[in-house]
Amino acid sequence: MQILFVGDVVGEMGMEMVDQYLPLLKKDLKPQLTIVNGENATKVGRGINEKLFKQIMKDGADVVTLGNHAWNNADIFDFIDDTKKLIRPLNYPGKDVPGNGYCELNINGVKAAVINLQGRIFMEETDDPFAKIDELIMHLKAEKFTVIFVDMHAETTSEKKAMAMYLDGRVSAVVGTHTHVQTNDAHILKKGTAFLTDVGMTGPDDGVIGMQYEPVINKFLTSRPNRFEVETNGDGILSACLIDVDKKDGHAKKIRPIMISQYQPYQS
Amino acid sequence: MQILFVGDVVGEMGMEMVDQYLPLLKKDLKPQLTIVNGENATKVGRGINEKLFKQIMKDGADVVTLGNHAWNNADIFDFIDDTKKLIRPLNYPGKDVPGNGYCELNINGVKAAVINLQGRIFMEETDDPFAKIDELIMHLKAEKFTVIFVDMHAETTSEKKAMAMYLDGRVSAVVGTHTHVQTNDAHILKKGTAFLTDVGMTGPDDGVIGMQYEPVINKFLTSRPNRFEVETNGDGILSACLIDVDKKDGHAKKIRPIMISQYQPYQS
Amino acid sequence: MQILFVGDVVGEMGMEMVDQYLPLLKKDLKPQLTIVNGENATKVGRGINEKLFKQIMKDGADVVTLGNHAWNNADIFDFIDDTKKLIRPLNYPGKDVPGNGYCELNINGVKAAVINLQGRIFMEETDDPFAKIDELIMHLKAEKFTVIFVDMHAETTSEKKAMAMYLDGRVSAVVGTHTHVQTNDAHILKKGTAFLTDVGMTGPDDGVIGMQYEPVINKFLTSRPNRFEVETNGDGILSACLIDVDKKDGHAKKIRPIMISQYQPYQS
Amino acid sequence: MQILFVGDVVGEMGMEMVDQYLPLLKKDLKPQLTIVNGENATKVGRGINEKLFKQIMKDGADVVTLGNHAWNNADIFDFIDDTKKLIRPLNYPGKDVPGNGYCELNINGVKAAVINLQGRIFMEETDDPFAKIDELIMHLKAEKFTVIFVDMHAETTSEKKAMAMYLDGRVSAVVGTHTHVQTNDAHILKKGTAFLTDVGMTGPDDGVIGMQYEPVINKFLTSRPNRFEVETNGDGILSACLIDVDKKDGHAKKIRPIMISQYQPYQS
Ligand SMILES: [Fe+2]
Ligand SMILES: [Fe+2]
Ligand SMILES: [Fe+2]
Ligand SMILES: [Fe+2]
Ligand SMILES: [Fe+2]
Ligand SMILES: [Fe+2]
Ligand SMILES: [Fe+2]
Ligand SMILES: [Fe+2]
Repeated sequence: MQILFVGDVVGEMGMEMVDQYLPLLKKDLKPQLTIVNGENATKVGRGINEKLFKQIMKDGADVVTLGNHAWNNADIFDFIDDTKKLIRPLNYPGKDVPGNGYCELNINGVKAAVINLQGRIFMEETDDPFAKIDELIMHLKAEKFTVIFVDMHAETTSEKKAMAMYLDGRVSAVVGTHTHVQTNDAHILKKGTAFLTDVGMTGPDDGVIGMQYEPVINKFLTSRPNRFEVETNGDGILSACLIDVDKKDGHAKKIRPIMISQYQPYQS
Repeated sequence: MQILFVGDVVGEMGMEMVDQYLPLLKKDLKPQLTIVNGENATKVGRGINEKLFKQIMKDGADVVTLGNHAWNNADIFDFIDDTKKLIRPLNYPGKDVPGNGYCELNINGVKAAVINLQGRIFMEETDDPFAKIDELIMHLKAEKFTVIFVDMHAETTSEKKAMAMYLDGRVSAVVGTHTHVQTNDAHILKKGTAFLTDVGMTGPDDGVIGMQYEPVINKFLTSRPNRFEVETNGDGILSACLIDVDKKDGHAKKIRPIMISQYQPYQS
Repeated sequence: MQILFVGDVVGEMGMEMVDQYLPLLKKDLKPQLTIVNGENATKVGRGINEKLFKQIMKDGADVVTLGNHAWNNADIFDFIDDTKKLIRPLNYPGKDVPGNGYCELNINGVKAAVINLQGRIFMEETDDPFAKIDELIMHLKAEKFTVIFVDMHAETTSEKKAMAMYLDGRVSAVVGTHTHVQTNDAHILKKGTAFLTDVGMTGPDDGVIGMQYEPVINKFLTSRPNRFEVETNGDGILSACLIDVDKKDGHAKKIRPIMISQYQPYQS
Repeated sequence: MQILFVGDVVGEMGMEMVDQYLPLLKKDLKPQLTIVNGENATKVGRGINEKLFKQIMKDGADVVTLGNHAWNNADIFDFIDDTKKLIRPLNYPGKDVPGNGYCELNINGVKAAVINLQGRIFMEETDDPFAKIDELIMHLKAEKFTVIFVDMHAETTSEKKAMAMYLDGRVSAVVGTHTHVQTNDAHILKKGTAFLTDVGMTGPDDGVIGMQYEPVINKFLTSRPNRFEVETNGDGILSACLIDVDKKDGHAKKIRPIMISQYQPYQS
């Protein structure tokens, strides 16, 4: 089973990249499961709304994941409980957290789950992602889920690698998001879990991780408040990866990074 | 020479406390120098504007200091360069930082300086406050300033105490701000500098360091965004301290905390 | 019922202050429950060992609490599971955390509990202290505990005040530790819980929150590693508070700070 | 002019990779300038000593850079001032910081400089890297340096990209270090500066960014202290990049990542 995962969609240019290339990628790669991280999909790069979610689904996603920006657009509260295909990090704390932290699918008879997790190092306080996913995997295994994909939304390389090794052999893939820069380390861990520290972002390529350069540099130079805006000029990038999973045991057989950019135009 | 220092004024209730009690404190204590930290003076508790600054001055302040919230109300940029009596932390980085980091005064022939500094532990990136104040003190000593007051706006007790010991004997007083809770450790250090880890805040006493409880607790419980609002109900508090400084050598002779609250009503 | 709580004992001088003054305080104040935070009791100011724990108990403590330094002296693992009177923060994460996070006592027929909690802002990642204590209080109420004391070991004033308001009316007292500086805000909250943002430390008064000044200032000046050592010269301080609790409903009737130092010698 | 840059050498296996492959890379690629980041070269993965420095030089480095671990092995103070070829981050604060923050070279008549910078986001407090490098570049340009290489040792992708854009056209290359995972974004910025968010590490490939998995996972699971040790089993990795710079104007013409690992064996 092929799983296609597209990294953090940022702003209008991110949505344009998805509109333009996700249908092509689906046609060419024929993934059975397509996942898109949409935590920065709004025009301002923070959060998502129902229209954008539906557009990503229409473009070909089966599941949309989020991250620390899940709650930044308050529209989320209006529709997240109505859909099981939009998931927020599993380990957000509190009672009755809106939405779900994972999504169950049946893909031609194969039970598959997509999980969204959030790291804690240099991030908001959340429940322990290690403890939370332990519990969930126990449940999923009992329910005979074989294919399990984890979007590990985290800042540090160490927390993402530790999570991947912790889950090695128990899930099909652990792919990081949040830093908006694709890493060059896609590989299969010893016990069969595919890993990529960060898949990278989808959106404007010429800013600073999606944002206009001027306010960001002014923030660094002055430490005074600067309103960050999504970059709207220049070229776009789409960052993704393709994972080949054995649908019988859920182990990954192959993982390869995908990048469409000004430097690497798309070739069918 | 008596120096009166009033801690972080927060929101409308903070302004009301200043309006009501600063004139009384001035009448009763007759300080030659009155300083008020106004970094949270706006209705929303972030930053200051010209009207509020003028009101604090009219109530009896000689100098108004700020802190990390200096820049949160953009009105500041309209008037900070027109007045020498409103100062922002000396060690904000960058070229042409608006406003000044200290204020020079002549009090009946005594050259006095008020300095605003900001700590770095668990705060915005700024220039080294130790290096910056070293330079400034060198300059002030060369210019024959004797009385020097430092508002050290910082999060941790260790950075504030280290700064006070670093400046011991070189300045008249180091008083902390920012945590909004008065500490119980006012004393004179070995070489003559008065020290108080934090002078505390001035404003609503029944919230969480000035803010309404509900959004704050929801933030702690959920890690989701919650719009914090200044508390407008309940009783007010005014936190301050009075420092007696020898105007000849600039050394402190005495420091005592002041608090006006529901538990300690003001007594002339 | 009178509860005496002594703040973070730091190093040899901290132990000397406890040896010298705790018996006197007990004789004069006659508390029915005496609690000491011992997280910095070792000579190096990090952690505790069995000998020191026993000494604090012999000096008059009924329960010893800890904090983020609980685990810094590995000796702790040798004896923490053998005693119910030494408690570590309730919300340390993981399976089979050594020791207990609270202690149950029967004081002349009154069921009393002492709880140690740790904050998360600017501290190690731990489980949600709000969620953890909610569960525990539910259990304690079901078991008819009336007097409940909480040592909230945390960095920020906001997290401590928020916790106190969260528990207001449900516990007898929330007293903060960790910043090593006593705050000047002891009071009873609206629904009957006594609160003090930080009780302060017990140990050397002339360093930086217990540590020698030179390495601390060098760390601030250079950001290079500096080995911190506990201050062994100068005067000592003992910081504490006394809380009067109604043993029938567990509500606090009074709280007052206690400080013994070079500036405030002990007076029986 | 070809510049070869090898990322953070970690522990014994890192040194072995350098011993084995650096001579091969030099023979095959014939770089005129070879730079190695050695901040984790000691057996314990923290700091460097004179023997290791000399060994890296003997293996073919012209300059060795460091990072936040520069000072963790105190041996550094014994020899860093004796060599101009070992540099530590330029923006370490304080007076008389040991060693230099950059290195000047003359390569067949071309004046070249190698600079080591450190970021501030989620790292130790240091002087502003933007302000520091501004000053230095002014000096270097006045002295007719054309080729300038910057090792930007930083945690976040945003600070590294912002620095690269800030320096675009003024230096030949900005290459990140510190996260120990190579990113997949090597490219030339608009005005001629080569950029790679992180070059990645050189050492054990099967741990967590160089360290043994068990203590790291235990730290994540328990938040209790765990002594981290460098991984000594499994395969090694060498992460590097090759930059082609026009020696006349100092602009980069090409940058390509290099990785030697169990998945990508070295091919001459
Ligand atoms: Fe993102
Ligand atoms: Fe994110
Ligand atoms: Fe404030
Ligand atoms: Fe502040
Ligand atoms: Fe402590
Ligand atoms: Fe502590
Ligand atoms: Fe490193
Ligand atoms: Fe590093």
